[in-house]
Amino acid sequence: MRTIKLKLAYDGTHYHGWQRQENGPTIQEHVERVVSLICNSHITVHGAGRTDAGVHAHGMTAHFKTSKGISCSKLQKGLNSLLPDAIRVISLADESPDFHARYSALSKTYYYAFFTGSIQPPHERLYRAHCPGRISADAIRSCLRIISGTHDFSSFEAAGSRDKKRADGRGAIRTIFSAELHQPNAGYLDLTFTGNGFLRHMVRNLSGTIIEVGQAKKSVLDFEQILRSKDRKQAGPTAPPHGLTLLSVNYD
Amino acid sequence: MRTIKLKLAYDGTHYHGWQRQENGPTIQEHVERVVSLICNSHITVHGAGRTDAGVHAHGMTAHFKTSKGISCSKLQKGLNSLLPDAIRVISLADESPDFHARYSALSKTYYYAFFTGSIQPPHERLYRAHCPGRISADAIRSCLRIISGTHDFSSFEAAGSRDKKRADGRGAIRTIFSAELHQPNAGYLDLTFTGNGFLRHMVRNLSGTIIEVGQAKKSVLDFEQILRSKDRKQAGPTAPPHGLTLLSVNYD
Repeated sequence: MRTIKLKLAYDGTHYHGWQRQENGPTIQEHVERVVSLICNSHITVHGAGRTDAGVHAHGMTAHFKTSKGISCSKLQKGLNSLLPDAIRVISLADESPDFHARYSALSKTYYYAFFTGSIQPPHERLYRAHCPGRISADAIRSCLRIISGTHDFSSFEAAGSRDKKRADGRGAIRTIFSAELHQPNAGYLDLTFTGNGFLRHMVRNLSGTIIEVGQAKKSVLDFEQILRSKDRKQAGPTAPPHGLTLLSVNYD
Repeated sequence: MRTIKLKLAYDGTHYHGWQRQENGPTIQEHVERVVSLICNSHITVHGAGRTDAGVHAHGMTAHFKTSKGISCSKLQKGLNSLLPDAIRVISLADESPDFHARYSALSKTYYYAFFTGSIQPPHERLYRAHCPGRISADAIRSCLRIISGTHDFSSFEAAGSRDKKRADGRGAIRTIFSAELHQPNAGYLDLTFTGNGFLRHMVRNLSGTIIEVGQAKKSVLDFEQILRSKDRKQAGPTAPPHGLTLLSVNYD
């Protein structure tokens, strides 16, 4: 039995997120359908995690098992020829049998993209949240320093998620290895987060709250207190899904 | 009576081009609707030219007449608040009464964007034609030199257009002031054309033929003969609309 690792990029605009569900088309469903078709058997594709409806990926990672003796290059070409253009297999390789897209992952990197100019270029509107106005880069950097390291991120977890038991027993405690601000051009503001895991809506809740600090609607001190409060009601709004991209899932 | 000049950017993906028509939604129709709404009268908006269904614009220019005494800044904000996100008024200003978006234009600049790598990033698929494989930049530059200057571009005019009388009497003769190749990154290939006018499908037919020369499916000599033949049947395919963007309309 082979274990195949896939790296996927997708435009999440028209999908109901990664995970298979009955409400509408998902990335997992599309990928499973074409993998099963090419491998001639019903195959489950395991992702490194979920992405919400409308969230994009440059480097989602997944794996599946098959006994099909097809070269990786042919498999990749076959999958890309059957998948919609909005979903691409960026790379594909055999892995050791104990590789698991989710459990073998050491960290994930997300970025949240804002456009802060007054008029957003139409061709970027699906990939960048529009948040016009003056922003203090210093205030944002202060927030990013505050969340770096290991914290209880309950304040930034999706409402309702706290009641659910978490299988891994680590509660809402996560470690952010790096949190950075990039401003490639005037009006462009990207927040990049690398961590050992992210709670549901955590990156969007962090981004929605941090941008409010950048806009001086909240102070850096407020932000620090929000994190410490472990109370979702204290934090700012959930930034919209289309500004979020899963950049990479990082392995050993 | 005021003459208002508009600069518009749009994502043409879901529109049937610039010009008002009955088959489906167009950019002109949307802009006229909101201009008429804000100015409280039925207003015709004149564009600098047409763009085909699926073609984008960073700088389409248009004008309209109104006696409404509203500031340009308020008018622009009002239009942008009513227009779909895919259509933005980039700038808006009063012009002299004899300004006409089409007749006052000295030149237009279009660019045609190709992606030549094997796997196209999903978030660029709506704005860049996928044309995988090795491309000779030198061959492309030779074609661009050949078309620069004043020529009869009948070979690159949409089939069927030749029968139509042209009001301005210049037939298929156009002047290309500049034609350039840009390769910002590996796999990215942009052709930029500035000219005093472009026949129907001319940029797409030029781009579809030039890329075939780049791929060595045709020689530079073939290309020169195609231009001289004044015969549309000699040229290559019409490149798809989504790779084309009207970059600017240039005035005095």
